[in-house]
Amino acid sequence: MLSSTSLYAAIDLGSNSFHMLVVREVAGTIQTLARIKRKVRLAAGLSGDNTLSPEAMERGWQCLRLFAERLQDIPQTQIRVVATATLRLATNANEFIEKAEKILGCPVQIIRGEEEARLIYQGVAHTTGGADQRLVVDIGGASTELVTGTGAQTTALFSLSMGCVTWLERFFSDRNLAKENFAAAEAAASEVLKPVLDELKHHGWKVCVGASGTVQALQEIMMAQGMDERITLAKLQQLKQRAIQCGRLEELEIEGLTLERALVFPSGLAILIAIFEQLNIDCMTLAGGALREGLVYGMLHLTVDQEIRSRTIRNVQRRFMVDIPQAERVQQLAQAFADGVADEWDLDTLSKDMLRSAALLHEIGLSVDFRQAPVHAAYLVRNLDLPGYTPAQKKLLATLLLNQTNPVDLSSLHQQNAVPPRIAERLCRLLRLAIIFASRRRDDILPAIELQAEGEALHLKLPSNWLACHPLGAELLEQESLWQSYVHWALTVK
Amino acid sequence: MLSSTSLYAAIDLGSNSFHMLVVREVAGTIQTLARIKRKVRLAAGLSGDNTLSPEAMERGWQCLRLFAERLQDIPQTQIRVVATATLRLATNANEFIEKAEKILGCPVQIIRGEEEARLIYQGVAHTTGGADQRLVVDIGGASTELVTGTGAQTTALFSLSMGCVTWLERFFSDRNLAKENFAAAEAAASEVLKPVLDELKHHGWKVCVGASGTVQALQEIMMAQGMDERITLAKLQQLKQRAIQCGRLEELEIEGLTLERALVFPSGLAILIAIFEQLNIDCMTLAGGALREGLVYGMLHLTVDQEIRSRTIRNVQRRFMVDIPQAERVQQLAQAFADGVADEWDLDTLSKDMLRSAALLHEIGLSVDFRQAPVHAAYLVRNLDLPGYTPAQKKLLATLLLNQTNPVDLSSLHQQNAVPPRIAERLCRLLRLAIIFASRRRDDILPAIELQAEGEALHLKLPSNWLACHPLGAELLEQESLWQSYVHWALTVK
Repeated sequence: MLSSTSLYAAIDLGSNSFHMLVVREVAGTIQTLARIKRKVRLAAGLSGDNTLSPEAMERGWQCLRLFAERLQDIPQTQIRVVATATLRLATNANEFIEKAEKILGCPVQIIRGEEEARLIYQGVAHTTGGADQRLVVDIGGASTELVTGTGAQTTALFSLSMGCVTWLERFFSDRNLAKENFAAAEAAASEVLKPVLDELKHHGWKVCVGASGTVQALQEIMMAQGMDERITLAKLQQLKQRAIQCGRLEELEIEGLTLERALVFPSGLAILIAIFEQLNIDCMTLAGGALREGLVYGMLHLTVDQEIRSRTIRNVQRRFMVDIPQAERVQQLAQAFADGVADEWDLDTLSKDMLRSAALLHEIGLSVDFRQAPVHAAYLVRNLDLPGYTPAQKKLLATLLLNQTNPVDLSSLHQQNAVPPRIAERLCRLLRLAIIFASRRRDDILPAIELQAEGEALHLKLPSNWLACHPLGAELLEQESLWQSYVHWALTVK
Repeated sequence: MLSSTSLYAAIDLGSNSFHMLVVREVAGTIQTLARIKRKVRLAAGLSGDNTLSPEAMERGWQCLRLFAERLQDIPQTQIRVVATATLRLATNANEFIEKAEKILGCPVQIIRGEEEARLIYQGVAHTTGGADQRLVVDIGGASTELVTGTGAQTTALFSLSMGCVTWLERFFSDRNLAKENFAAAEAAASEVLKPVLDELKHHGWKVCVGASGTVQALQEIMMAQGMDERITLAKLQQLKQRAIQCGRLEELEIEGLTLERALVFPSGLAILIAIFEQLNIDCMTLAGGALREGLVYGMLHLTVDQEIRSRTIRNVQRRFMVDIPQAERVQQLAQAFADGVADEWDLDTLSKDMLRSAALLHEIGLSVDFRQAPVHAAYLVRNLDLPGYTPAQKKLLATLLLNQTNPVDLSSLHQQNAVPPRIAERLCRLLRLAIIFASRRRDDILPAIELQAEGEALHLKLPSNWLACHPLGAELLEQESLWQSYVHWALTVK
């Protein structure tokens, strides 16, 4: 078997950059082999009458020669190449495309804005967790896509002619980060948005997801500054003030903002502020994928799972050969414990879902080694691509897995931003107890356990005589009480 | 399916400690789930007329109650419990065994010394790499096993009545680490060895492997002190001098020696020195397993592979879903490069085998994530249980995988003790080049590459026009030359 038959490639010829994504299909999941990105800045070569300059075209072709070498090894039917806004607009796009197809040795398709929006939505639906009635926002170099949908189905699709490259040229051409420039950029964006507001609001959404470089940059800034990962209008306004204080584009400096993203950050920020204001968005999180992921999942004919997180968990369990009955056993116990303390400890849907995920993955560290298995589990979860989980949620999961047994590292539970520290502690305690009681790997010998919470104190009630009959279980529980007492968690066992 | 059907347990009731090993069979390999050890010190309860004291028996039964809880969940046919030297000797062993069987709920077998030696040899053969004509040495609490064999077959089996616990009581009962005590211990050990020397020497060996706590302790000491991991008589004599300087057993302090192993370390050391001297052993390395592994592999009916390392590599490739054709391609290229520079760079068998192993595993990091895949690969190799590879060899492999691309971390190549630093650098360079030329994942487009070495300088000769036709390849090579130049490795490309 030639190993290349399981390879797929998606290329998008964007207005700012050309991107190539090469993946391998492994056991029904996607393993990324390469991401290559080149800043071609095609949009900058578009003249007033929408003709693409020879220099810009040459930059594009040069990049494609690089991609071509890698593409040759992939079956033709497993490659999709699409071109977006700038090539939609360019009157001499044919000239560029013709030569591009020769270089790549495969067809290049200029897709309409609606098709781009549909593909972005698919990429998001395949990779992003949370409630499935969503609004997807993608701010590109020369176009911005706004899509509403439920599950795999889109309900409204818009592609608007504004982007972070074109807005940079129109409103920040003097490279001044002046209040007035921001105001003009926001006002113009609001004008562009007006015609589509009603329909988007009509369809509505429960979660809002951003899929562009601007949102990626915001995510990085918030992580670097230790904030939680939800983007709000207040945070955007703060960042705008910070940018204005910097004065000039070349002096822009924000902790967590990389040089690579800095140039188009203010213009993207202005567009995003207008979107938040016009659509009254409370909060936005980063999508797990967009256009290229939509292309790849489309070729693989994978259906959108109603529950991305469940699919992710199943795949990881299979790949790392987790003892699934045992994982389910711990999950059910943890769930039962969470129900038992529901009155006292209000755990929201997200928290319960994180507890469930941690229980289902708690043994993946064994695939590396029995010694330090919790450390290995945390390492894997921190580094695996887990569609449906945001970076902050992955960090919480890793922390819960790290603390599944042995002395508790309280500081790690407090250094995640997915849930409040107190909630992380509670999830940790429920998981640890579930693991202890499931340690025999059998369903038929689980004791009738009663778990109650009184403030932060936990009381375990076991059938009389259970401790005497189960010396190993008794030893584990005694050790656990001791470990919990070290971090001032009260646990009584009766 | 009850998840416990794939569980196996091996228990050995040793003279110093009782051990339980619980494993899970996963895809034809063994995943360790638990190792429980309790220092029961049964041998200390044996009186002059070989009766076991009631207190010692009670200590043993108490430990077995703990094991029993865990055992209940494992199918009876998948448990083996054996007892060794002390219970072979005890005249009232029946009393102990009868109650032990009741507690455990399964048969306990007192095995003869020869059977113990055979099981130890099987455990070593299943888990230890290197040439397959071997001498295996296992110094237990009350007996020492010496076995020669080839592949899965033993050729001579001996179990001698000396051990680190009995020798402690006989020669260090005053707790003095005096020169005289060592001399007496060594002389007595030599006497015990005399009758078996001829037959062992007659069968001969190419490698010598140690499987006991004493050898484990030596391994830990040498790693902690940054020495290479081969045990030689010179090193043993040095450690003896160090122990003598410490004066008394309770003041024994050697960097890398743990408290747990300290008590029986001097007596074990004396026995090992006698073995080295009487059998003229050059060098010994640590085995990957012994008695308990022999019991487990025996139950699983796995055959001993001629090439443990190959089996290990295949298992890891399968478990982490490595693209095997690609791994083979890189391995063959690396091999061809090594052959090309053979005149200038003499790489010994071990070095070539490490290069081969690194090539076959270089992509395992992708199973975690594409980003930082080399870091993930190094993490996995460092932490995986890799039968056939010693700890130092695992460290070398991890270092080679870490440095498979990107700037070279020279210090990591120098901080391993499996091969000299210069050799590690050479292996690293060959691996990196093989990966670059195989990056297209196809066999039919590999250029006819000539690689020559001149001192440490490497010269690559490519077919004319190749660089011009392969812009991506050319870019990779140019970058590689640059990275190699940063660490003063000369690489010319023509």
